[in-house]
Amino acid sequence: MTQAAQLYGPVSADISVVTRRLRDLARGHHALLGETLLHVFESEGKRLRPALVLLCGKLGFYRLDALVTLAASLEAVHTATLVHDDTIDQALSRRGLRTVSAMWDSKVAILLGDFLFAQSAELASQLDSARIMSLLSETVMAMSSAELRQYAAAQSISTDEAGYLERIRDKTATLFAICCQGAAIVSEQSDAACDALRQYGLNLGIAFQIADDVLDIAGQDATLGKPSGNDLRQGTVTLPVILFAQGLTPSSDFWEDLRLRRSVDRWIDEVRDSGALERALDRAAEFSSKAREALVHFPASEAKDALAELTDQVVYRQR
Amino acid sequence: MTQAAQLYGPVSADISVVTRRLRDLARGHHALLGETLLHVFESEGKRLRPALVLLCGKLGFYRLDALVTLAASLEAVHTATLVHDDTIDQALSRRGLRTVSAMWDSKVAILLGDFLFAQSAELASQLDSARIMSLLSETVMAMSSAELRQYAAAQSISTDEAGYLERIRDKTATLFAICCQGAAIVSEQSDAACDALRQYGLNLGIAFQIADDVLDIAGQDATLGKPSGNDLRQGTVTLPVILFAQGLTPSSDFWEDLRLRRSVDRWIDEVRDSGALERALDRAAEFSSKAREALVHFPASEAKDALAELTDQVVYRQR
Repeated sequence: MTQAAQLYGPVSADISVVTRRLRDLARGHHALLGETLLHVFESEGKRLRPALVLLCGKLGFYRLDALVTLAASLEAVHTATLVHDDTIDQALSRRGLRTVSAMWDSKVAILLGDFLFAQSAELASQLDSARIMSLLSETVMAMSSAELRQYAAAQSISTDEAGYLERIRDKTATLFAICCQGAAIVSEQSDAACDALRQYGLNLGIAFQIADDVLDIAGQDATLGKPSGNDLRQGTVTLPVILFAQGLTPSSDFWEDLRLRRSVDRWIDEVRDSGALERALDRAAEFSSKAREALVHFPASEAKDALAELTDQVVYRQR
Repeated sequence: MTQAAQLYGPVSADISVVTRRLRDLARGHHALLGETLLHVFESEGKRLRPALVLLCGKLGFYRLDALVTLAASLEAVHTATLVHDDTIDQALSRRGLRTVSAMWDSKVAILLGDFLFAQSAELASQLDSARIMSLLSETVMAMSSAELRQYAAAQSISTDEAGYLERIRDKTATLFAICCQGAAIVSEQSDAACDALRQYGLNLGIAFQIADDVLDIAGQDATLGKPSGNDLRQGTVTLPVILFAQGLTPSSDFWEDLRLRRSVDRWIDEVRDSGALERALDRAAEFSSKAREALVHFPASEAKDALAELTDQVVYRQR
């Protein structure tokens, strides 16, 4: 068990069942597919999404096997998007492991991602729930649509906080939401509980992504495994930058410099020194509070405590 | 209606319903996603897969709306694989239209393909059939696995006819098979009919892909929209080349030249002159016969005639 998994309270031990299920998926394929699958499932990661599935499942009828299937399906989706994102970003490493596109090449990475999307749907279809199946496909549609919109926005530089929130909701938070709502469905909870856990997941996911975007600017190369301020270097404007820009005078060179990718290092330092990172974390904490509020009608339990605890952890973490 | 669609007998008119359904999918999205979706659904193409769905559906209870949903889902899968394949091959055009990766870039193409896979699953989930959902995900897994194997094989040059047949079955024929089997399920046909139509689709798809691989070598640049012998230039060994190589003396430079991508033009001419293309088409015709045999237990109908007719058309076509 990893250190991270120990944080997941009553489901910590079952996280390793999900990891085993994922590694089993690498068996029975031709050499290249088997090797690449093992590679992407080798990293323990945080397994945050599987933990959400299991913890939310604990609030209902804890059907371990079905919940592990759902968790593996959603971790496969997450992995597929990472593999494709790394290909798009031409990233060389992620969490200390070389990316698929770096270790093999972008062709292999594109096809492996496609396989993982399909594997995810195959696992979900085992649950025999039309509702989960349609939630899953809508989630992936929202995620890839949001990534496309982010890319289009980066070409024209967008400064809109509402647009930012919508984008991270679709890009990140919808997957958190289906983890929680899907687990509620699988564990046979009431419609009200399914809705409440969806709201928990959505708000947790938004808080998580804001904190991620803060870390991208605040972080050191060693912890991030990539240069800090990576988003800004690629023209992607995140909440800290939007808040920073609100304090600029109209005559500032900031947007023009950004458009030309000029003086980016200096601007990253200015964003750090402006207090915008702290204000962005305050916004993240607001979404965390909303996530905690969504838990209010569930009776006290270890799983509920762990879910509440997570709302703080996603904001105040060092990756 | 395109000329191609007129070949599809009793379902010719309904092909345009599928096309409209596909174009409707482009609505309600942000600009970049809407534009790219319209672009990929603009080409009329042959709409062979939708035609298979509708024709096989005609053999049972012709539920047009559900069959159109299935056809749109499977055409979306097909389109997703084309978009990703063109990105991998860095192709500039397909059927006279610029590829997504050429018109936008490979990032947009990767994300659009992901969206289309998810859109396909979303459409399939509307059919509320766990069997179709699991067939669909298994099909996409087989397709991407086969593409990866083809890529791995191209690195090491494979000459194995059995391996070739397995690869094109997974890469191409499984999608034909789910078109036919899925339509049989949707149109409430017997288990025996579902199995027979799966066999029809599998054999038709193998014949189609062999003919495609022959055309790749036989075709002229103008009809193909890409240089002839494209597969061999990329190190992909197809049936005509395997049959040609069987007639070589052990001292031939062929495999060594191929490994070094040397004298490829000359070898393409030699393959053409060797009679290997004709022998490959004979093999395609054998699979076409098997496809026709699978139709034997269906009573006479216009749709059955059109399906039988297709088994010849896929072999003896000019694209």
